[in-house]
This record gives sequence, structure tokens and C-alpha cells, in this order.
Amino acid sequence: MKKLDVTLDRRRNDSYQIHIGEAILDWTATVLGRSGIARRCVVITDSAIDALHGERVHKALEKSGLRIDRIVLPSGEEAKTIDSVLIVAEKLIALGADRQSLLIALGGGVIGDLTGFTASLYMRGIPFVQMPTTLLAQVDSSIGGKTGVDAAGGKNMLGTFHQPWGVFIDTGFLKTLPDAIFRSGFAEAIKYGAIENPALLDDIAKAAAENSLRDSSFLERIIVESCRIKKTIVELDEREGGLRRILNFGHTVGHAIEAASGYKLSHGESVALGMNAATRISQKLYGLPAQDAEKITTAIRAVGLPGTIPVSLATDDILARLSMDKKAQHNVHKKEGKTVHFVMIRGLGKPFIQGGLPEKVIAETLEELKG
Amino acid sequence: MKKLDVTLDRRRNDSYQIHIGEAILDWTATVLGRSGIARRCVVITDSAIDALHGERVHKALEKSGLRIDRIVLPSGEEAKTIDSVLIVAEKLIALGADRQSLLIALGGGVIGDLTGFTASLYMRGIPFVQMPTTLLAQVDSSIGGKTGVDAAGGKNMLGTFHQPWGVFIDTGFLKTLPDAIFRSGFAEAIKYGAIENPALLDDIAKAAAENSLRDSSFLERIIVESCRIKKTIVELDEREGGLRRILNFGHTVGHAIEAASGYKLSHGESVALGMNAATRISQKLYGLPAQDAEKITTAIRAVGLPGTIPVSLATDDILARLSMDKKAQHNVHKKEGKTVHFVMIRGLGKPFIQGGLPEKVIAETLEELKG
Repeated sequence: MKKLDVTLDRRRNDSYQIHIGEAILDWTATVLGRSGIARRCVVITDSAIDALHGERVHKALEKSGLRIDRIVLPSGEEAKTIDSVLIVAEKLIALGADRQSLLIALGGGVIGDLTGFTASLYMRGIPFVQMPTTLLAQVDSSIGGKTGVDAAGGKNMLGTFHQPWGVFIDTGFLKTLPDAIFRSGFAEAIKYGAIENPALLDDIAKAAAENSLRDSSFLERIIVESCRIKKTIVELDEREGGLRRILNFGHTVGHAIEAASGYKLSHGESVALGMNAATRISQKLYGLPAQDAEKITTAIRAVGLPGTIPVSLATDDILARLSMDKKAQHNVHKKEGKTVHFVMIRGLGKPFIQGGLPEKVIAETLEELKG
Repeated sequence: MKKLDVTLDRRRNDSYQIHIGEAILDWTATVLGRSGIARRCVVITDSAIDALHGERVHKALEKSGLRIDRIVLPSGEEAKTIDSVLIVAEKLIALGADRQSLLIALGGGVIGDLTGFTASLYMRGIPFVQMPTTLLAQVDSSIGGKTGVDAAGGKNMLGTFHQPWGVFIDTGFLKTLPDAIFRSGFAEAIKYGAIENPALLDDIAKAAAENSLRDSSFLERIIVESCRIKKTIVELDEREGGLRRILNFGHTVGHAIEAASGYKLSHGESVALGMNAATRISQKLYGLPAQDAEKITTAIRAVGLPGTIPVSLATDDILARLSMDKKAQHNVHKKEGKTVHFVMIRGLGKPFIQGGLPEKVIAETLEELKG
């Protein structure tokens, strides 16, 4: 028998910049035009975003001097499927897009995940840029390179780690965001407050009290801080080998609630409920001080996110979805098969991973939160 | 406006080993069992391979001490679609496969490409191993980390670079290979002879003359040498930025012929015809000596691969498929849009990339090869 070594030890530099500000479309065009990263750009967006911003973004990006094309998908979570990837890929072929082309994700989390996934597969990988238009995407999902689509077997069943070439966060897009979707985005910012920087919680509660949640400088401040926290964690653990899991604070129970509601509850609402549960369990089992817990629940309430789980959602159903992998089913957030990992906090900014919690405590907590 | 840098400069070590020999199944089990790379393995294969080798491989791999499962797809090129990826992914979910699971591609190029692609997407990437069963996969496609599936828009339209954790080449599998498929595999070995090591051409021609093409030590020798050449090129240019393109010798025209035949000609037969054309054009335009050209065409003829293009294939049709991107259509092998790249040789072992060839010369050469 013969052996050959294939030696691919190498440095790869996938570093990138996040640009955050109001009305930065012209700046985005300048950066793309100067970069040499591509000869042309294809904007991927959905019909709702396109109606509001499509033409304006297209015209602004043309100032880069690059050819700009636009592919418009139907709007909504149902667009996040492999079929949409195939539709986009076939349109890219028809446009003659090649390895010198850059995709631009103009939209919320669905468009970002879908565009990043398509970029990672088209011609075995082309660059893409995130241009998030929702608060949720601006504080969280546009950073970190997780891409994916849903399939019959589960959400994000297929995906890749494919870092964007750059992220351009224009807070101007938030002005046209419907109130419910806007408020939903605060859930992830509150998460960053809980796991890393309590000042975010105070800032959000104060802005809510002063009715200035849509104030530009406030928004820029919480987006910058949320992105700073997320990117620091991603730098340390890009592929979610360990540390990055703390970003799932509120998400384990949150995803179960979201699924149990048949996705009638939004991701932000579900995560808010998941954080309420995680906070309460952290108090019961891990000594989280009452005043710390209060800061989290106050911020959640202040932005108008729910504090109580609809009575229509059966606790047993939520629990069953938490332990799906016991039935050899899988949620991709559970990386090691048989144990469900929960993110708990000992105090604000002090998260840790707990593999497995007593089901009784979870059930009791879910019941307490019903209302 | 604020800017944040996301710094992901990092070393990644995706090095791996290629093991080549006869009857190395037990060795494969030992290596996998000792490695700690996974807690369980899922063999992905097709019904034809499974009928011949499935049970035996399964039993041998169980000696690793790891849990072994098997997913069997229908056989044939039509299996290389995104639908097959979804089928495999959903079966993996049903089996409870997680990030501690390793996929094993047991089969030819289709199974290898499909399994590698699925591994790169499942839970955002899990490890996989190549266990190639055809000569073509053993000398070429199991090495180098190119994965992908076909779609309506073109072959390999979606794919990734995802290196295997290891490659286990058991020449014993070749014994059950039908003669036509076996002979087809020599096309890529002849390619390595043409672009890098002329001794391969002599070795193949001699074995053919002595009727010993199925001799184990001969096969091991040409597989080791082909793999050595390929892995050296992949080490220098993993993502096909430049050098790796020389592996497309005979493939540009070959793919056009393969498509023009409606895939009735096999990949090996088509590449053989493409190499005949590339050799002839290299003689006409780039001074390839007649005796060098003769060595290539002799080896092709000796293993029973075709020297002439079926008259039923219209030269215009082949040319149209070569220049598809002029009509804004794309073949993923053409990375930069408007120019078709051809690999030419000045002499044996002296390849170079030529961006664009006079259409007249290609047409004339295709006509000369008709028969």
C-alpha cells in the first residue's frame, strides 16, 4: 500500500469590514467601485423590499461604475428554500454571472441567508455583500457568515459558513419598517445586552421610555454595539465549535416556541419568550440576581415584545420540540446529538453553556410564563 | 458612520492522506477507528455498487468499532441532482446523524461529488471520506475537493470546495468494473501523462500491448502517479485560481462533445476525443512535436478509447457548445465570462493556458477527427 500526503495548510484571510450609518448608499457604491473585488454586482432582494427601495439602491450602486443587475424573489420566510437557490442560480446563469460577479443581499434575514448560501455554491463560491434592511438583520444575522435554507427535515437543514466580503448597514432602511417587524429586531440587541453588555439594556429601556426607539443616533449606537459583540465572538469561534453557542441565549426554548406556534410568532417574539424562560431558569438554578433578571425582562417589555407565552401553546408540545433529537430527529442548533444545550447566565454579561436541564424545571417555567 | 473590522485571518489545516492498495478495507476501518474524527459513519452509495460491495464494506468498516449506516441511491448520472442531496440529507436527519458523523462516498465520480457536496452543506459542514470504486474516480475525481451537482442550467452548476478527510483507494473494486467503464478511466491517467509525466503514457501503452491493463501492480502504479500529480497541483492552487486549470487538458472540447452527444459518449470517451483535438491543435499552432502527439494518441488507442468523433455529431453543434457563454450562457468551467480557456501543450509535460483559439482551427480539427 502507498500513502500520499495532501498538504493544504494555508493562511486564508476572510477578514471584512462592517459599515454602519444613515444614508450610506453612495459610500457603499464608492467602496465597491474602488475595491476591485468584482466586475459586476447582482442584487438579490424580495418583492416587498424591491417595491420600497429597489430602484433607488440600483441607481445609487450604478455610481460604482460596475454593472448592476437585480433578481427579485417573492417575499416571506417560505422563500428560504433550495428551490429559491435554484431559481437565483439559474437567473445568474442567464445573466452570464461568473466568478468576477458579486452578489448583494438586500433585505432581511431570509434574503441574507439565502443570498449567502447561493454565493457559497454558485461556481463553487463567489463573493457577496450584506445590505440588511431589517433591525434584526442589522444587529445580528448579517454578521458572522452563517448561511442556509430550510427543508422538509428542518430549518437551516442545509447551509455553509461563507463570510460576506463586506456588510453595509444603512439605518435609513429602518424608516420604512412596519412597527411590529421593527420592534421584533430588538430581541437580538437585548440578547447582546444580557450576555455581554448590560448598558445596552439600559439604553434600550430608556429610549423606549422616551419614545425615541426610532431615533437615528440611538439606533446607530445599539447596532454598532451589537455588531461589535457579535463579531468579537465570531472572530474567536467562527464555526461554532464552542464559544459561539452563547449567541443562542433564549434561542433553544425560543425556537421550540416558534415552531410550536406554527411560525405565527415571529423570530423576535419567540426569542423574547425564550429569553424570559432562560432568565427565569437562570434565577432558579444558577443564582442569577433578581435585579439582573429584571433588567432583561424590563427591556423586553419596554420595546413591546411579549412577556407571556400564549395559553394556546401546549407546554408538552414545546417540550417535545426541545427534545426532538431523542426521537432521532434533529435541529441543527443541537450539534452533538443527544444533549440539548441551553445558554444560561449567572449574571448580566456572564453566560455559560449548560448541557441538559431538568425537564421539570423547564415545564414549570413555561407554565409560569403562560398568560 | 462607524466601521468595524472582522478579523478572521487564520490557519486552517485541511491536509489529508490518500491510501492506495489492494484489499485495504480492513486498513480503512483501522484508520477510521483510531482517528477520533467521528463517532459514527454513514456510507453513501448507489444500488449497483451496493449490490456488489455494500454488505462486505459495511461488515469490514464495523471493525472500526464505529456505528456504520448505509444510504443507497439509484445508480446513474441522473442521481447527481439537488434532489438527491435533499434525499440524503433527510435520511441523515432520520438516522440522527450530527456533526460527529462522517460520510463515506462509496462509488464513482457521481457518488463522490454528491457525497462531498452533501457533507459540505449538512449542518454547515461535516467530514467525509472518499472510497472510489471506478478507475476514473481512483485516478482523478476522488482527489482535490471539488464537489457539486447538476441542475437544469448546467453540469456542476452548484458546488463547493470541500476537501475529504481522507481518500481510501482499494484497487480490488476495479475487478468487478465492466470493461467499457474500466477503459474509460484511463482517459484521466493519459491526461496526467500528457501534462506532466510522459512515462505514464509509455507504461499504459505497454500494459495494453501486453494485455495486462488489469494487472494489480500496474494499476496501483498508475493510480499512485496520477494521484501524486493531481495532489501536487491542488496543493498549489486548491480553488482553481490559475494553475489548476491545466487539469482541464482535453476537457474544454471534451465537455462540448459529451454534451453534443446527449451524454451518450462517456466522460472518458469524450475527454479522449477532446485530448485528440487538443493534441492536434497544439501541433498546428504551438509546435508540439509529432512524436509527442503520437505518444498521446497511441495511449488513447491502446486502451480502446475512441480516436474519431462520430459523424453524427455536427461540428457546428460542438462549436456552439464551446462558445455558449457568447450567448450569455455558462459552463462553470469557464470562470471569466467571455473567454473560453483551452489547455494546450508545447511538448509532453509542458501545458499552458490559452485564452481563446481561432474558431476556424477548432472547426477544421473537429472535421479531421470525424470518422
